[in-house]
Amino acid sequence: MTPTHALPAVLQKIDADLDQSLERLFEFLRIQSISTDPAYKEQCQSADVQPVDPLDLWEAPPFAPRIATLPDGRKIIVARGACDDKGQVMTFIEACRAFTAVTGELPLPITMMIEGEEECGSNHLFGFVKDNAAEFKLDLALVCDTSMWDPATPMVTTSLRGLVYEEVRLTCADRDLHSGLFGGAAQNPLRVLARILAAMHDDNGRVTIPGFYDGVKELPPDIKADFKGLDLTPANFLAEVGLKVPAGEKDRMLIEQIATRPTAEINGVIGGYTGEGAKTVIPGKATAKVSFRLVGAQDPQKIRAAFHSFVRARLPADAKVEFRSFAGAPATELPFDNPMLAKTRAALAAEWGKKALAIGEGGSIPIVADFKRVLGMDTILVGFALDDDRVHSPNEKFDLTSFHKGTRSWARILAALAG
Amino acid sequence: MTPTHALPAVLQKIDADLDQSLERLFEFLRIQSISTDPAYKEQCQSADVQPVDPLDLWEAPPFAPRIATLPDGRKIIVARGACDDKGQVMTFIEACRAFTAVTGELPLPITMMIEGEEECGSNHLFGFVKDNAAEFKLDLALVCDTSMWDPATPMVTTSLRGLVYEEVRLTCADRDLHSGLFGGAAQNPLRVLARILAAMHDDNGRVTIPGFYDGVKELPPDIKADFKGLDLTPANFLAEVGLKVPAGEKDRMLIEQIATRPTAEINGVIGGYTGEGAKTVIPGKATAKVSFRLVGAQDPQKIRAAFHSFVRARLPADAKVEFRSFAGAPATELPFDNPMLAKTRAALAAEWGKKALAIGEGGSIPIVADFKRVLGMDTILVGFALDDDRVHSPNEKFDLTSFHKGTRSWARILAALAG
Repeated sequence: MTPTHALPAVLQKIDADLDQSLERLFEFLRIQSISTDPAYKEQCQSADVQPVDPLDLWEAPPFAPRIATLPDGRKIIVARGACDDKGQVMTFIEACRAFTAVTGELPLPITMMIEGEEECGSNHLFGFVKDNAAEFKLDLALVCDTSMWDPATPMVTTSLRGLVYEEVRLTCADRDLHSGLFGGAAQNPLRVLARILAAMHDDNGRVTIPGFYDGVKELPPDIKADFKGLDLTPANFLAEVGLKVPAGEKDRMLIEQIATRPTAEINGVIGGYTGEGAKTVIPGKATAKVSFRLVGAQDPQKIRAAFHSFVRARLPADAKVEFRSFAGAPATELPFDNPMLAKTRAALAAEWGKKALAIGEGGSIPIVADFKRVLGMDTILVGFALDDDRVHSPNEKFDLTSFHKGTRSWARILAALAG
Repeated sequence: MTPTHALPAVLQKIDADLDQSLERLFEFLRIQSISTDPAYKEQCQSADVQPVDPLDLWEAPPFAPRIATLPDGRKIIVARGACDDKGQVMTFIEACRAFTAVTGELPLPITMMIEGEEECGSNHLFGFVKDNAAEFKLDLALVCDTSMWDPATPMVTTSLRGLVYEEVRLTCADRDLHSGLFGGAAQNPLRVLARILAAMHDDNGRVTIPGFYDGVKELPPDIKADFKGLDLTPANFLAEVGLKVPAGEKDRMLIEQIATRPTAEINGVIGGYTGEGAKTVIPGKATAKVSFRLVGAQDPQKIRAAFHSFVRARLPADAKVEFRSFAGAPATELPFDNPMLAKTRAALAAEWGKKALAIGEGGSIPIVADFKRVLGMDTILVGFALDDDRVHSPNEKFDLTSFHKGTRSWARILAALAG
């Protein structure tokens, strides 16, 4: 029996066994695996989640999972980790379990890895993958840690932005100076820094560093059309954090600005007197942290070098610069014409009765870049989290529908990929 | 006997009594009047000086004044306060004493005030002057707390720059955001701040705030000619702090940049992540401290308002600003054609055998502005400190010549002003 033929029975099995699946998830959720707290080290040998503080905001103990009902009638699973990522992990495991129960085997060769350090730095993940490359090297990686577009719309995350992070340290005088005595004559590193940072964007929000957009591709027309049809507006994305107007490239849609376009951000600046009140100092030094989100084929090393040149070209006499380089990772992209992407989208569409979106995500998941770089393996990211899941916060939840239909989705995806 | 007629005898008396004058100064210097340390509160009822740390760098105890000889043969008085400001104060007192000894009276009506809180904030000075305005209101204030141009060249400080100090607090999102999720769409207050601060100066170092230069006068030709003749070079002014090139208005002499031209300085900036390493945050807020040194008739209130407008005009959507206003004081200037200035310069020239310079100072002495504003009284600032006096540092000294000829200078000035 091919996986495709077995699928109806597998889906039926998933439906029939939902209560048992939930009990297995609850058992997983009862493990107090607070990853960042050494007191829970032993429990973290079994799993891994975020801390639960502030505890008094939880309506029930975070490690006593329960089913509750929202005012709109949605049934939810409430516990720390219900969604992130114990609940999501279990959707995949339960799909595999149902296949094995029905057909006696997995629908295709699978190496499964559950990462237990994702919430505290993933310090051993890369080494583990590298050391076990032979076992990991398959046709495709599947990652279950992402979101639905909305409760009705499934989504495949097809790209993750890369990252280059630089610290810029400017020095002018060899000490802080009194602005009464030296004001007017001494070069001020904060003034130099302001001019450099201000020059990084033009009036249209475009990054001005020469060569910055090398390797940035335009979206295929069908994907762009999908994006245009989305209901992502400043009102429903920015308003919740007190903002109204997208600040990126003016000729780009909001979804492009956050998902598929590269950015330059100033993450921090410090220099001179920053305490209470007034002190008339001309500082000797000033520091900025600047980072770049990369897309497409932008080369982290070239971006870094271009940024260094950009800064050096703007140094007046008496200003010296030192750089400290942090993260440098290229974007990871699943090509839009990858046939496995088409199969996955079709499987999701069949389960949810709605076209599955293919969208980039603004952040980075370093292991996805490692899969590509070390194993030459593309990754498909599918997940069933919703925006209101309160991931990392008190009263974290996972919709029962997310869990149930998520499990069914994976069964369909596995069948499609095997077919 | 007029003061002018008495002057030769007064100068003779000063020379003859030098040892006694020194002994009186030493007695003054022995008072351990460390103003900032409550343990010395009682001693500070008698005088006031800067702390003496680091004590181990003193070649002799700071409150055991002594005469020493420099390698170049100069005799110096060594002690905390030898110059700043016990030594300087005593030059004036000894001149008055000599006049009284010779003529039986002061050469002209004098109200003398010795400020004992100058090193710890001058919190009571303004109130004291205001409460005793009737006694203070005379033709002219004389202040003895400034420097010679060099060991051979006397100087009258004819202006002090005013000060406007502002804190700018920008807010965009109502919290710090993750640059992976929001990068590209969320307005970044550090980017807004950089653009505002960068716009404050043009490429020639001129401040671009509209109306900023209103009330700034050009120097009279004779003073400008004096300035041109000075040996103030980047090599001997900036090199000691590790700088080489004056950073102010390109078409102005260095001495103008630091003494008689207004400035805009960024004194401090903080925002976002400033700790070790990398954090991909888009900060919710950013703060800068900005100050302006004012000259001539620049109006602090107008400058403040113009700066506020300048900032507000550069706020994009989603950026809000709050200001906190600190110091606001106009420049104080003794008009170059003030006849008392001419008399003072002539008296100094007679003593030192060299034309006395009339130069502005870059910093502010608030009481001088108060004298003008509250009492309508101009101030002449004359002092005998030298650049190598190590004021506020270990091994503070005052040249014996500064003390002796300083005392003689005041006798000449008092005679000239009385004449």
